[in-house]
Amino acid sequence: MTETPPRITVDGRVGPVNASLVPRFVGPATFARLPRPDEVSDVDVAVVGVPFDAGVSYRPGARFGPSHVRESSRLLRPYNPALDVSPFARQQVVDAGDLAVNPFSIDEAIKQVQAGADALLERAGRLLTIGGDHTIALPLLRSMHRKHGPVAVVHFDAHLDTWDTYFGAAYTHGTPFRRASEEGLIDRSGCMHVGIRGPLYGAADLTDDVELGFSIVRAVEIEDIGSRGVVERIRARVQERPVYVSVDIDVLDPAFAPGTGTPESGGLLSRELLAILRSFSTMNLVGADIVEVAPAYDHAEITGIAASHAAYELLSAMALTGQPT
Amino acid sequence: MTETPPRITVDGRVGPVNASLVPRFVGPATFARLPRPDEVSDVDVAVVGVPFDAGVSYRPGARFGPSHVRESSRLLRPYNPALDVSPFARQQVVDAGDLAVNPFSIDEAIKQVQAGADALLERAGRLLTIGGDHTIALPLLRSMHRKHGPVAVVHFDAHLDTWDTYFGAAYTHGTPFRRASEEGLIDRSGCMHVGIRGPLYGAADLTDDVELGFSIVRAVEIEDIGSRGVVERIRARVQERPVYVSVDIDVLDPAFAPGTGTPESGGLLSRELLAILRSFSTMNLVGADIVEVAPAYDHAEITGIAASHAAYELLSAMALTGQPT
Amino acid sequence: MTETPPRITVDGRVGPVNASLVPRFVGPATFARLPRPDEVSDVDVAVVGVPFDAGVSYRPGARFGPSHVRESSRLLRPYNPALDVSPFARQQVVDAGDLAVNPFSIDEAIKQVQAGADALLERAGRLLTIGGDHTIALPLLRSMHRKHGPVAVVHFDAHLDTWDTYFGAAYTHGTPFRRASEEGLIDRSGCMHVGIRGPLYGAADLTDDVELGFSIVRAVEIEDIGSRGVVERIRARVQERPVYVSVDIDVLDPAFAPGTGTPESGGLLSRELLAILRSFSTMNLVGADIVEVAPAYDHAEITGIAASHAAYELLSAMALTGQPT
Amino acid sequence: MTETPPRITVDGRVGPVNASLVPRFVGPATFARLPRPDEVSDVDVAVVGVPFDAGVSYRPGARFGPSHVRESSRLLRPYNPALDVSPFARQQVVDAGDLAVNPFSIDEAIKQVQAGADALLERAGRLLTIGGDHTIALPLLRSMHRKHGPVAVVHFDAHLDTWDTYFGAAYTHGTPFRRASEEGLIDRSGCMHVGIRGPLYGAADLTDDVELGFSIVRAVEIEDIGSRGVVERIRARVQERPVYVSVDIDVLDPAFAPGTGTPESGGLLSRELLAILRSFSTMNLVGADIVEVAPAYDHAEITGIAASHAAYELLSAMALTGQPT
Amino acid sequence: MTETPPRITVDGRVGPVNASLVPRFVGPATFARLPRPDEVSDVDVAVVGVPFDAGVSYRPGARFGPSHVRESSRLLRPYNPALDVSPFARQQVVDAGDLAVNPFSIDEAIKQVQAGADALLERAGRLLTIGGDHTIALPLLRSMHRKHGPVAVVHFDAHLDTWDTYFGAAYTHGTPFRRASEEGLIDRSGCMHVGIRGPLYGAADLTDDVELGFSIVRAVEIEDIGSRGVVERIRARVQERPVYVSVDIDVLDPAFAPGTGTPESGGLLSRELLAILRSFSTMNLVGADIVEVAPAYDHAEITGIAASHAAYELLSAMALTGQPT
Amino acid sequence: MTETPPRITVDGRVGPVNASLVPRFVGPATFARLPRPDEVSDVDVAVVGVPFDAGVSYRPGARFGPSHVRESSRLLRPYNPALDVSPFARQQVVDAGDLAVNPFSIDEAIKQVQAGADALLERAGRLLTIGGDHTIALPLLRSMHRKHGPVAVVHFDAHLDTWDTYFGAAYTHGTPFRRASEEGLIDRSGCMHVGIRGPLYGAADLTDDVELGFSIVRAVEIEDIGSRGVVERIRARVQERPVYVSVDIDVLDPAFAPGTGTPESGGLLSRELLAILRSFSTMNLVGADIVEVAPAYDHAEITGIAASHAAYELLSAMALTGQPT
Repeated sequence: MTETPPRITVDGRVGPVNASLVPRFVGPATFARLPRPDEVSDVDVAVVGVPFDAGVSYRPGARFGPSHVRESSRLLRPYNPALDVSPFARQQVVDAGDLAVNPFSIDEAIKQVQAGADALLERAGRLLTIGGDHTIALPLLRSMHRKHGPVAVVHFDAHLDTWDTYFGAAYTHGTPFRRASEEGLIDRSGCMHVGIRGPLYGAADLTDDVELGFSIVRAVEIEDIGSRGVVERIRARVQERPVYVSVDIDVLDPAFAPGTGTPESGGLLSRELLAILRSFSTMNLVGADIVEVAPAYDHAEITGIAASHAAYELLSAMALTGQPT
Repeated sequence: MTETPPRITVDGRVGPVNASLVPRFVGPATFARLPRPDEVSDVDVAVVGVPFDAGVSYRPGARFGPSHVRESSRLLRPYNPALDVSPFARQQVVDAGDLAVNPFSIDEAIKQVQAGADALLERAGRLLTIGGDHTIALPLLRSMHRKHGPVAVVHFDAHLDTWDTYFGAAYTHGTPFRRASEEGLIDRSGCMHVGIRGPLYGAADLTDDVELGFSIVRAVEIEDIGSRGVVERIRARVQERPVYVSVDIDVLDPAFAPGTGTPESGGLLSRELLAILRSFSTMNLVGADIVEVAPAYDHAEITGIAASHAAYELLSAMALTGQPT
Repeated sequence: MTETPPRITVDGRVGPVNASLVPRFVGPATFARLPRPDEVSDVDVAVVGVPFDAGVSYRPGARFGPSHVRESSRLLRPYNPALDVSPFARQQVVDAGDLAVNPFSIDEAIKQVQAGADALLERAGRLLTIGGDHTIALPLLRSMHRKHGPVAVVHFDAHLDTWDTYFGAAYTHGTPFRRASEEGLIDRSGCMHVGIRGPLYGAADLTDDVELGFSIVRAVEIEDIGSRGVVERIRARVQERPVYVSVDIDVLDPAFAPGTGTPESGGLLSRELLAILRSFSTMNLVGADIVEVAPAYDHAEITGIAASHAAYELLSAMALTGQPT
Repeated sequence: MTETPPRITVDGRVGPVNASLVPRFVGPATFARLPRPDEVSDVDVAVVGVPFDAGVSYRPGARFGPSHVRESSRLLRPYNPALDVSPFARQQVVDAGDLAVNPFSIDEAIKQVQAGADALLERAGRLLTIGGDHTIALPLLRSMHRKHGPVAVVHFDAHLDTWDTYFGAAYTHGTPFRRASEEGLIDRSGCMHVGIRGPLYGAADLTDDVELGFSIVRAVEIEDIGSRGVVERIRARVQERPVYVSVDIDVLDPAFAPGTGTPESGGLLSRELLAILRSFSTMNLVGADIVEVAPAYDHAEITGIAASHAAYELLSAMALTGQPT
Repeated sequence: MTETPPRITVDGRVGPVNASLVPRFVGPATFARLPRPDEVSDVDVAVVGVPFDAGVSYRPGARFGPSHVRESSRLLRPYNPALDVSPFARQQVVDAGDLAVNPFSIDEAIKQVQAGADALLERAGRLLTIGGDHTIALPLLRSMHRKHGPVAVVHFDAHLDTWDTYFGAAYTHGTPFRRASEEGLIDRSGCMHVGIRGPLYGAADLTDDVELGFSIVRAVEIEDIGSRGVVERIRARVQERPVYVSVDIDVLDPAFAPGTGTPESGGLLSRELLAILRSFSTMNLVGADIVEVAPAYDHAEITGIAASHAAYELLSAMALTGQPT
Repeated sequence: MTETPPRITVDGRVGPVNASLVPRFVGPATFARLPRPDEVSDVDVAVVGVPFDAGVSYRPGARFGPSHVRESSRLLRPYNPALDVSPFARQQVVDAGDLAVNPFSIDEAIKQVQAGADALLERAGRLLTIGGDHTIALPLLRSMHRKHGPVAVVHFDAHLDTWDTYFGAAYTHGTPFRRASEEGLIDRSGCMHVGIRGPLYGAADLTDDVELGFSIVRAVEIEDIGSRGVVERIRARVQERPVYVSVDIDVLDPAFAPGTGTPESGGLLSRELLAILRSFSTMNLVGADIVEVAPAYDHAEITGIAASHAAYELLSAMALTGQPT
């Protein structure tokens, strides 16, 4: 009774469970029904979950994000026509499961995430991390920096996440990119926020943000420039730098992502986000995360499906960019 | 206690219950509160439900689609300003109820749908069918073909639905248009998919699809060409052919249609779908269906209302195109 | 235990509770966590709720709208980067609570709303009212007229709301603007509907509407002209007139506003609505309302958040336009 | 296409649609899929809906109650083993549809309900009414009184509904039984509330209630005396009097009936309510209503199914008690 | 990155993931976070899912039951104080995953379930199966019979499930126990239904049922005899026979199990079901299933948690009864 | 516009807003619409919220509990017939709002809760606290101990909450009563758990628990002894000691309290809990809390209403027991 499910294997790369033999609603929900690491020999990309949400300032629940995104990924098929690539055939992708981090200590959790990411990168060329709240971007960037030096962060979010402290806490879901900039983890000449909107604490938030290394594409601009225009802005900013993409699902409008912790009206459409993410297939994409999916507020997996498709486009982009440099 | 409710009657055509006398939440929910066939003499268009979902590969529940779309249609009023037409005054539209088909046998159900459609077309000039899952498009196309010969199908969907078999089953919701093409029911020079997106099994899906007679407008193209551009593409493809329109509600983004069985992120906006459907008012529209509404996953009738408006636009288009040729 | 919560005070204007000391989920939900009138000396703008829905023709529940919009406004921060203004620092905004009106008598409720609005305007320069159903726009316009004479109404809605009677009732949520026009409360040369869509009773609805003083931007036009185009149309119509903005939340598509009473498919995106509302910062904005939020049909505050952001943009616009003339 | 669906007919009585030929999710949802009046010759019992909720003091929405209870009744089968009776074979039961009453005027609606009930009783021996809010019990009792003289009301509810006025309104969902008592419609020596619980305005509520003719079985007593004990109390109170049963669905605990307007914790279990209702099979049951189902607050038809089963037990009891005296 | 999670191991039996090291919301949801078969040497009990629902007559969706019950089982801890047993320490329990069966062919699926169960029983002493709809009880009983000869079935359900055919289909979720009785799989002198309620097709349903080998404890009786009384009735009926327990979750009232396909009001409380299931610890329990959990209709895992606790009590009972005879 | 709403005042005690003048859905939701402390002179009982949930081990969200319970308390009326007392007339009850505690530091939050409770008890005789997660019971007991010495805790819960550490954290929602016992805050001869059920980590949990000072009434026993039996057990254990009541809402079955963080099947009925809580009217009740309401998992306020009624019974009991000794 322990036999491995039938899988689609191409060029020696072990892919998803074969849906023509095993219905999509059958069996455990690894991401896209991909194999676990122990089912393969080499690993190019590891999908890993970080079920952690102690850094959330409003609606909690992103601790259930990884399992929800996985359940919402059962319908993903192996060929991406938009990029003309089979992301699981061109590279070996696995679902490495979840990092078990301390739910009661932000400080310890940050260390555990970094240790977990470092360990995974011993074996895998790249990580795609599913959160969890945005606090985890800091240890992930530490791990990225350890491998790649300062990276250009392209950050999709309604919020800047470059605030300083909150209730005296330096490490929360509102601060990862300030800390990362202070720690020298990011390349201040190449970072960018996409999708910013909604009220801020003050005009100084914006000036601080510039100093920390970010330029901004605001959500409202997309009506004018379209996803093509956003891609041009990203490309001009990032150029050849190693790019780390961090997607807070609240970059989407609440209609497209109700299941999140700090929703803001006026966001992106899902097709805009997906189109923009595809553009990383021609950049030097070294890693990515998708965070802040809070399933208790989702309905019919609207948010989970959007997140799983975002992950799929990022994996496809990784397949096309080859090994990170 | 059996008196007929007061109805809006124009030019001898019996229309919806009069909402200024009977509140919209009162009485049975026929589509748009239209009369049953036994309340009228002639019938131009029959709205008919097919509560069947045994052909679904993922989330079932479209068997409850017809009653849900009807409940969601209570707010429809008699005049369509976008097309400047009163669809229930220009033609006699009735709600012919549901076809009772076998829930345990796809094969028998397909026969029953065809027989039911054939019988309805004895009396009605055109059908607008509410599914049910997409399996039912095959027997409906058989019935169309019987009356009109090969038709140009314009198919709104996230998926191609030209796959071959699934678990050895040749007749499921993923295969109707391959079967229809194989059976010669459709005009291979004039068919088209609109709204395709999301992963496929492989690149061959697309080449097969071309051979089966379809061209494609992908969802991602709509950001560039707009609904006007889509209409031009449809018109160029379809020309004067008799057109059958098949709307899988998952052509809409999950934000606009959470209540469906195989949702894919990155879909159409509802206003785009409605605008495109209006264009059939100047084509030779011979029949239509709206399928894959799965109410258990809907919320506040978001999906049901979108489907009911799609139906309303198609009925309006039928009113303007006159009797099918 | 009665001490006032710590607030952000700028230039003597008492603003929201300080979120760096009191988490956003703590304490009572006044709008944007603003002070009550008794906590300040002068009042520029009063936010006031009217929990009333006896005028609803379909889904009731807007009586719970004010408390829902307030709960959904906890995340609003004090600086609006889109307009580069701090709306609570440039003017004194308070949450004046709810008007207690008779739930069983539309006639009495209308009088109570008018009396309540008149009383508030004794102290406050402007009102932003949260409904409640659209019936309340009539007494609010009476109060506006008393202070400003005939106003140009810019009305965001799927529906015209210029119908005559319904079940013999002259005062319902479908009639306020006909009554207002008949009573001379509005400037017939400067009024406008934005977002109209969906079926009507007949073509006469449109001709009546023109006579009553309204021009129309239909929802379907926005795909072509964008929110910029809408703003131009509004500005050309309204010019220097005193403007009253009335936002029925069903102007948004049901995907963006499921929690409402008479949803229509094909509506605006939230970012379009917000962009258009910002334009009133350069017009002569004398008052506004946001109505028809029915929380029982909302999910995860999608609708409530959209409404609270709409209110925030209107308050920001008021801050920039200075005292109404 | 207008043929009648196949029905189960016993002893000339036309029963539900045959579920072995037409699946339960097919076709319009009359109550228990029973015939309309025009499908039969004689009528013993008419099920009738009153979609009205303008008398509600808290959560509105019971206007959608009749259609929701009907949708929730699709699973009802024709034989009641608990009472060993086939309620649709022993008597002719029909679904007479809804009364269309004015949603904006309580006074006019009350007249319309009474007129409608009177008209139905011209043809049918008994009515089972589905609300709507509890306001409708007054005109129903007027109609009962007209036919039977003063009746003993057995009233299942969390609340007394013998309050006097609310906002000056004498006719609301909190007052029907005080008005009925004042008008002499009920037999003050034989009425009873079952399920009362939760806070009151004052001790005087109870003394008034006694004077108005009611004794009380409180919800908390049922843990001690069981449903058998409740039945004994009812029987002792009612004796041979003509009995009218009025079931406010909030007599059930919110766990069993979340979909209602003024829920109170600590209520009855559904099996207790059903067991008690069966006892009316040996009393002189002349009519009944089931009110206050508010579908917007229901989930998965929990409330609707409880209400439909309550109705089924009452119809079964009617079948066994023969024609009312 | 492939290391095994830390587990609680007692007496060589590999138990759940250690929740003091890995939070309960981390990692894949095997039942109770138990090991897979490949993580252990011997297997006493295998938990196995059968995601199949093509045999459903009303609300489909039980195909998602197995993954939902597993997600709802994350909180189960290793010691059962009610029976004073550690079910995962006294016997080796594993989660054997799901059987992949044909979603489009009831006949083929039945064969696949039987083959799967037979194969599992080669290695495991007993199975606890999570459905899926009740159709699967037939092949499971075939497999039981193959190993144990005729078994006494104790069947918890609102419905008899001994109907004959439906739409000509002999094998559906309404017929497994008639087929099993006809095939001689069950011991007609020892079978029993518990929790029966709601309407039937006719009185003959009951007489047929007796002939097929079942006695009945009706739901309504439990108010009188309590769960103790039910246990006495079961014990008297079953005696020393090998017992197979089949739990249709709709035996619970819809308040306790909204997430199911054919809900009936008036059902058991969850604590009654759990108390009764514990009694099998002193009978000869050879196997069990829990079926008809339809997650699309569940809320906050109410149904899933009830099902997971039912499973836990059955596993505890198995631990105490030792190897099946 | 700042006038105080009309209130019911009896014997100089300021009570709820008068619902015959201000509908229940109007105005801010203080608990039971009671006054704030600044609206009265003396305070007997202060209701206070603690929106904190960083100590939760599974589903978070109890930070939104206080506002949800307040919204769910709008229907509470001033007279409690079950205890024949008007709790707001016999004593001055106020809603003291929320304590603002650090969401990112359990240690700091615990200090803040204690400081907040101490400060409130300077003015108020007793506190009724609404959580928040169960972590807050520890600082509340410290505050109780400071005023009353060791108290007898009667703890309603599915869980013991006497575990030791979790992920090295000594202070979480699973440990308050162990810590309280270790600190000498509770009277080990008089404490009791009511409603315990579900699996434990091991048998030692129970022996530890006895040593820490608790006896147990398990949920399963209530079917046998009823709420009366539970009350006898409590009274025998507690006797004349000062009693602190701590209600974890998960003591109720998930059907009655879906909105909580660690639900366990087989729990109490709401009417049982309410009946038991009434018994404290004849004990020496010195304080109480109601915790673990997690609104994101609630539906239609089922859980919130149960919690608000539990609070109401405790306030009524306080009214009858007079000043704590």
